[in-house]
Amino acid sequence: MSYRINLNADIGEGFGAYDIGNDADLMTIIRSASVACGFHAGDANTMHSLTMLAKQNNVSLGVHPGFNDLWGFGRRKIEMDPHDLELMVAYQIGALQAMARYAGLPVTHLKPHGALNNMAAVREDYALAIGRAIQTVDDRIIYVALAGSQMEHAARKLGLRLAREGFADRHYEDDGNLSPRSIPGTVFKDPDKALKQCLSMVKERCLTSRQGNRVAVEVETICVHGDEPTAVAVARHVRRGLEAADCRVVALPEMFN
Amino acid sequence: MSYRINLNADIGEGFGAYDIGNDADLMTIIRSASVACGFHAGDANTMHSLTMLAKQNNVSLGVHPGFNDLWGFGRRKIEMDPHDLELMVAYQIGALQAMARYAGLPVTHLKPHGALNNMAAVREDYALAIGRAIQTVDDRIIYVALAGSQMEHAARKLGLRLAREGFADRHYEDDGNLSPRSIPGTVFKDPDKALKQCLSMVKERCLTSRQGNRVAVEVETICVHGDEPTAVAVARHVRRGLEAADCRVVALPEMFN
Amino acid sequence: MSYRINLNADIGEGFGAYDIGNDADLMTIIRSASVACGFHAGDANTMHSLTMLAKQNNVSLGVHPGFNDLWGFGRRKIEMDPHDLELMVAYQIGALQAMARYAGLPVTHLKPHGALNNMAAVREDYALAIGRAIQTVDDRIIYVALAGSQMEHAARKLGLRLAREGFADRHYEDDGNLSPRSIPGTVFKDPDKALKQCLSMVKERCLTSRQGNRVAVEVETICVHGDEPTAVAVARHVRRGLEAADCRVVALPEMFN
Amino acid sequence: MSYRINLNADIGEGFGAYDIGNDADLMTIIRSASVACGFHAGDANTMHSLTMLAKQNNVSLGVHPGFNDLWGFGRRKIEMDPHDLELMVAYQIGALQAMARYAGLPVTHLKPHGALNNMAAVREDYALAIGRAIQTVDDRIIYVALAGSQMEHAARKLGLRLAREGFADRHYEDDGNLSPRSIPGTVFKDPDKALKQCLSMVKERCLTSRQGNRVAVEVETICVHGDEPTAVAVARHVRRGLEAADCRVVALPEMFN
Repeated sequence: MSYRINLNADIGEGFGAYDIGNDADLMTIIRSASVACGFHAGDANTMHSLTMLAKQNNVSLGVHPGFNDLWGFGRRKIEMDPHDLELMVAYQIGALQAMARYAGLPVTHLKPHGALNNMAAVREDYALAIGRAIQTVDDRIIYVALAGSQMEHAARKLGLRLAREGFADRHYEDDGNLSPRSIPGTVFKDPDKALKQCLSMVKERCLTSRQGNRVAVEVETICVHGDEPTAVAVARHVRRGLEAADCRVVALPEMFN
Repeated sequence: MSYRINLNADIGEGFGAYDIGNDADLMTIIRSASVACGFHAGDANTMHSLTMLAKQNNVSLGVHPGFNDLWGFGRRKIEMDPHDLELMVAYQIGALQAMARYAGLPVTHLKPHGALNNMAAVREDYALAIGRAIQTVDDRIIYVALAGSQMEHAARKLGLRLAREGFADRHYEDDGNLSPRSIPGTVFKDPDKALKQCLSMVKERCLTSRQGNRVAVEVETICVHGDEPTAVAVARHVRRGLEAADCRVVALPEMFN
Repeated sequence: MSYRINLNADIGEGFGAYDIGNDADLMTIIRSASVACGFHAGDANTMHSLTMLAKQNNVSLGVHPGFNDLWGFGRRKIEMDPHDLELMVAYQIGALQAMARYAGLPVTHLKPHGALNNMAAVREDYALAIGRAIQTVDDRIIYVALAGSQMEHAARKLGLRLAREGFADRHYEDDGNLSPRSIPGTVFKDPDKALKQCLSMVKERCLTSRQGNRVAVEVETICVHGDEPTAVAVARHVRRGLEAADCRVVALPEMFN
Repeated sequence: MSYRINLNADIGEGFGAYDIGNDADLMTIIRSASVACGFHAGDANTMHSLTMLAKQNNVSLGVHPGFNDLWGFGRRKIEMDPHDLELMVAYQIGALQAMARYAGLPVTHLKPHGALNNMAAVREDYALAIGRAIQTVDDRIIYVALAGSQMEHAARKLGLRLAREGFADRHYEDDGNLSPRSIPGTVFKDPDKALKQCLSMVKERCLTSRQGNRVAVEVETICVHGDEPTAVAVARHVRRGLEAADCRVVALPEMFN
């Protein structure tokens, strides 16, 4: 029997003269890329480069909308009217769709960035606002959501396609939430540890919590990071290890075939 | 025999808490609206409101891209790499396309704003950059250009649909260019003067220059303004006068049927 | 016996081509102006104009720092690191000090804007961060704070000069807080009602709450608004009425002589 | 006999999550730092860090004002009203003065960034606008200008202190202008070549042009770069070489004692 899973990463988070991340390397590892759209990071040029790179590497494209906060890199929580939020997300989807025309690629998923992701995970109004933007602009877009979050509920309520997301290099608590980064050792630098967690999520639909217990988990996509050289090494090891273990690493839309 | 002509205006140029122009009034007069897209003015909310208003008033939608300069309201000339410019314009087209989905309307034309319009009128590289953005994102979009400008040449070179633009309330020089605003009396506050120029442009394909000579002019669309109450009165008079004189005032795409 | 009180207003909240408020009118009524500094509103030009206008009208100058959120006009709550907040406020103080050099005026007070004001009223970390910015950049600057708020506590803790603020045109609850705007009638449009509350605050150190009870209140400054024509009329009536009732309306620093 | 010269560099050009340059290294080499102030780069945090670092390293502080163009990193020429430009520069001076209070340091020089520097070198209106901002905000601030540029003329006309600037790692033409970067070999990667040019400028008041001729040059400050590791190595070699050759490397204000 064979398994399949998607690997995704956030990319294109530079701006103007500023570069960040290891996009070119990551693009050879992941199968789906979430592209920053000019609000928390990214600009028309980074979006264009990344869509061309996605084309080259056979990677599917997603929107990575964030708060309008370049200074805070989208990591600051902002209280805003959910309708304003919806329109702000719709705007970012459209911007990426236009840039993706350069590569002839469709935009097939959406994953919120940073503080927006954190707030939408727990707030129904934000989660629904994002879902409504998807629904209006292109209802085939897959809503990538932390499993069990308000975003998962919103996607179901609005009848949107949903991809639940797990993390390769982060420890989990017994309740299925990510362990706080502040606890030492909860971000895996050991590639084997990350791979082991991924294999467990994909093949056994569960993982081992920080507390040492088995926790059920259903994911269609696993997020890897490119913030540091070690993160890229972890990602590469995960990709190879999954394939060696008979797990096909596919683009996100293929998870729905 | 019957004539037809399009009336257009620039709208949606507020931002956040800031309001500007008389959009609601103008929308009942014009048949095509060029919507600011968040760079020189406009935000996701104004774009949304205006697309809904366009729907209500049976007005066709266009992108009104500008430089990334909210402080300068897009009126400052900026020297930028033409490829960066192309991508910046493409981004703005996409953003509006997404917002237009809320009204179920297509984006059917593009008209550059302010300093970008002025520079693209005389610079081939800028004019082509804008044209290439249209070509890639949606090649059915009509390029609205000052007659005789580099934008007209660019549109022809790239095989794009072209609408040449005249002005209802501005005097022209013998060479077909607009008279500088700095010369008193070159902005018509008298509705009859504006209407007379419009009728001449539509029916006789010419106008009378500031110097008093007949100048040939071919236009598919006439721009009216909404900056001041008198401008709206002029626009309304022009619309009514054209219709009374057997000139159908149509949406821009209908000029190409 | 004679009383004295300061009248203040928030001004300079336009941006680039955008105008807002009735600054020129207000400047003839108030004695202290809080100037937006380019983050939630305002730019170098509005700051310059307002400092010149302050000079002309013998009005003292204050900083009106806000979140870095022009789109949201500083009305969106933003969670940020208090140290970042402190530096952001310090930056805005410095910017206004430079612009005030054109008028040869010192910057003598600081009053936070919008969501920053609301958050600092209830959060000690924000209130202290603002106070520390004052302390470092110029410790003679008066911290204008809602009476009883965390800002009052922060000012006392840091040993800063403090001006407690009341509102001319807003109803109060029994607990001394402002009545929510959502309750009809809590924003006074009747100039006499506003004046009566001001006289009560200045002469009797108390006011009558929405619930009809006497509430003690100590204020050194009263805020008037310029958002609408009626607000300016209210402000003018308050100024005249105070003076007619033997209350000298002085610039904020004079409250400390 | 002993010589003295200042070494300066542009620093603090990150923004939010973005880092750029090798500020910490450079700060141990230079004696004067020009700090980005939030318009083309930099934010309140980078400004604060750099002023503290300047204190630690006994480096004098200068403003490095740029156009309001983070996306273009201040490298795009912008046509703006000179009065607007003056106020924009004044604003940036004030912002840095406030941040410098954290280190207890004065702001003692100003050097325009990127496209603003290039435009002000050849345009009298821009050069004077910058000078007037200095004059109003703090007339003791030293205007750092390319020798022979409109900035030098503006500084003299306004009676400002002037520091003429040379470049350690750039070739010059016979006419005293910098050789275009597009010509191979005009940016020195060889530390000895850079040092030789510096020694020639300092001790002989001349340099050897790309064409091989002796060109007279008077400079009070030499600019070094930190964009790449090799640039830092060049800068360090220049500093050591100058000192070994009996040239004291002093902070900019010491050049005026």
